[in-house]
Amino acid sequence: MFHLPHSRPVRFFILPVYVCRYNVGDQFQNAKLVSIMFELVFLGTSASAPSAERNLTSTLLIHEGTRFMLDCAEGTQRQILKSGVGFKDLRRIFLTHGHLDHILGIGGLASTLGQWDVPVGSKLEIYGGRWALDRVRDLMKVVMRGKEVEIDIEFIEIKPGVLVQEKNLTVSAFNVLHRGTGNFGFVFEEKSKRPFLVERAQTLGIPVGPERKKLVAGESITLADGSVIQPDAVLGELVPGTKFVYVGDIARINEVVEQARDADGLVMEATYLDQDREIARKHGHITAAEAAAAARDANVKQLFLTHISRRYSGYLVHAEASTVFPNTIVCNDLDRYIVKREKNQGD
Amino acid sequence: MFHLPHSRPVRFFILPVYVCRYNVGDQFQNAKLVSIMFELVFLGTSASAPSAERNLTSTLLIHEGTRFMLDCAEGTQRQILKSGVGFKDLRRIFLTHGHLDHILGIGGLASTLGQWDVPVGSKLEIYGGRWALDRVRDLMKVVMRGKEVEIDIEFIEIKPGVLVQEKNLTVSAFNVLHRGTGNFGFVFEEKSKRPFLVERAQTLGIPVGPERKKLVAGESITLADGSVIQPDAVLGELVPGTKFVYVGDIARINEVVEQARDADGLVMEATYLDQDREIARKHGHITAAEAAAAARDANVKQLFLTHISRRYSGYLVHAEASTVFPNTIVCNDLDRYIVKREKNQGD
Repeated sequence: MFHLPHSRPVRFFILPVYVCRYNVGDQFQNAKLVSIMFELVFLGTSASAPSAERNLTSTLLIHEGTRFMLDCAEGTQRQILKSGVGFKDLRRIFLTHGHLDHILGIGGLASTLGQWDVPVGSKLEIYGGRWALDRVRDLMKVVMRGKEVEIDIEFIEIKPGVLVQEKNLTVSAFNVLHRGTGNFGFVFEEKSKRPFLVERAQTLGIPVGPERKKLVAGESITLADGSVIQPDAVLGELVPGTKFVYVGDIARINEVVEQARDADGLVMEATYLDQDREIARKHGHITAAEAAAAARDANVKQLFLTHISRRYSGYLVHAEASTVFPNTIVCNDLDRYIVKREKNQGD
Repeated sequence: MFHLPHSRPVRFFILPVYVCRYNVGDQFQNAKLVSIMFELVFLGTSASAPSAERNLTSTLLIHEGTRFMLDCAEGTQRQILKSGVGFKDLRRIFLTHGHLDHILGIGGLASTLGQWDVPVGSKLEIYGGRWALDRVRDLMKVVMRGKEVEIDIEFIEIKPGVLVQEKNLTVSAFNVLHRGTGNFGFVFEEKSKRPFLVERAQTLGIPVGPERKKLVAGESITLADGSVIQPDAVLGELVPGTKFVYVGDIARINEVVEQARDADGLVMEATYLDQDREIARKHGHITAAEAAAAARDANVKQLFLTHISRRYSGYLVHAEASTVFPNTIVCNDLDRYIVKREKNQGD
């Protein structure tokens, strides 16, 4: 399924319970075994323009094999190759906003995807604000000129609220403030679950098999002795699923603090340092210290900083943010992390 | 002037007379001393789609400090940063044709250049066929939407013949065959010169200084003893300047053989191997063996192969081409070479 093993050491972060080192390729085959929740692959971490070390912004979020690309700047298709995760099953791109350093890579990516024989009916879904989508539509006209590329694309305009509802996952959008209109942050939230209490089931004499499955699904069962068991008898308290929040460029943290409440992982921009906060204001950005304050105020478990400017070293960005919020990682290109709810919270 | 020294070993090729290793940054400061003719920086060497090792196609040609970018695929601006040559004085882009893997990087490059304070009156000149320019114009509409980027661009439609005439350099275009219309190759030719014969000047008693300069400029002088010296008395036979030819995607070599006659350096595509020549035909490309045959038939000194497909290793491409034409180099990203006329031919 994933075809490009690479020799680069895989860095990872995992919330406190498991610390499992994995090789690229293996983790997905073992997904059902090790119960990966969200995997993050930072494809590019630079703001505005690339540097020799950092490509422009794009992040891949993987949940149970389903992939979500978050922004897609110039050079992203090559970063996918370097990361080793491959192009397969890449069919959803979510745009935080329509600035060039977040969208221009869709051109090359669509060109490459369009060269392949894709399954009938498969298409690339691009979610974005109206302004961003209009810009990407024009970009795709450039790409498709002369039928050089033929690829089926669906443009889905984002409104605040639920964007995607899957069996175990809900993706929602919320408004954020940046330059222009149609800027969004995204909340990825796993379905809350009530854990099955095995010991209690044994005490009640419920056999292993379809009866237990019915109870987990919320149905009552009747045992051989005629007694009826309700699901409440063997299901524990509701445990919230893992929550992950992704934010692009923002001019203030208010909306993030509100939406990222108790999130297990939060990705934010850190384009400026406090010493340059006036420039940050002018360009509709926040500082590393402000991003950290948002994570602290929202009671987030882990903050990942990206969209790093060539002005600063990652070390300085980390120094500023971690003073405010210690659980801060300044991401580098091709870093991979796992975000999981702590075990004592369920799962 | 060039701000990004890097630690990558600099590879180079130089036609037989000088073998001078140089560091990035130094070579330009010493340009007048070491008489660099053409410097080639292979920014990207992949065909169609990038690979982890190769970015898509773009080549920088530098002549006496003047820079010509030859094609500009996605990711080129980052390759410029990695190469260490910087963005300064980059104001001319020549497009061999309008396919995406040769033009899409103009978007990001213009975006980055547009963020800088550029000198009044400076602009980016883009030379291309009509079809290519129409496509790039549409791309620039995407880039400039909402005035996110403001940069002055001049689009210059290529017709076969002289494109640029400078003091010591002529750049011409010629038609080549590929898919679609408006596909071009480029000839860069230095002005031919008559060498100043120092020993003869000494014999004739011509003092070192302005008199010699006048003779080199083609003017006669009168010595202190009243004798008149004509330029022919101290100027040798006309020696052609260095000739460099650059060709993008092509479906046949005929035009190249004609135009690259006796060139010191020739860059050609090598998208396919002979084993896949039927696919090459279908897509309007040549094979590595055919590129080598063109160099051989045109009596070229050195062949540089680029636009390498992910299908093959560079080793196999080299093996096929060098059987036909031994002076073949298969280029890798960030390779740098110097192309110079042989000393016994003058200079």
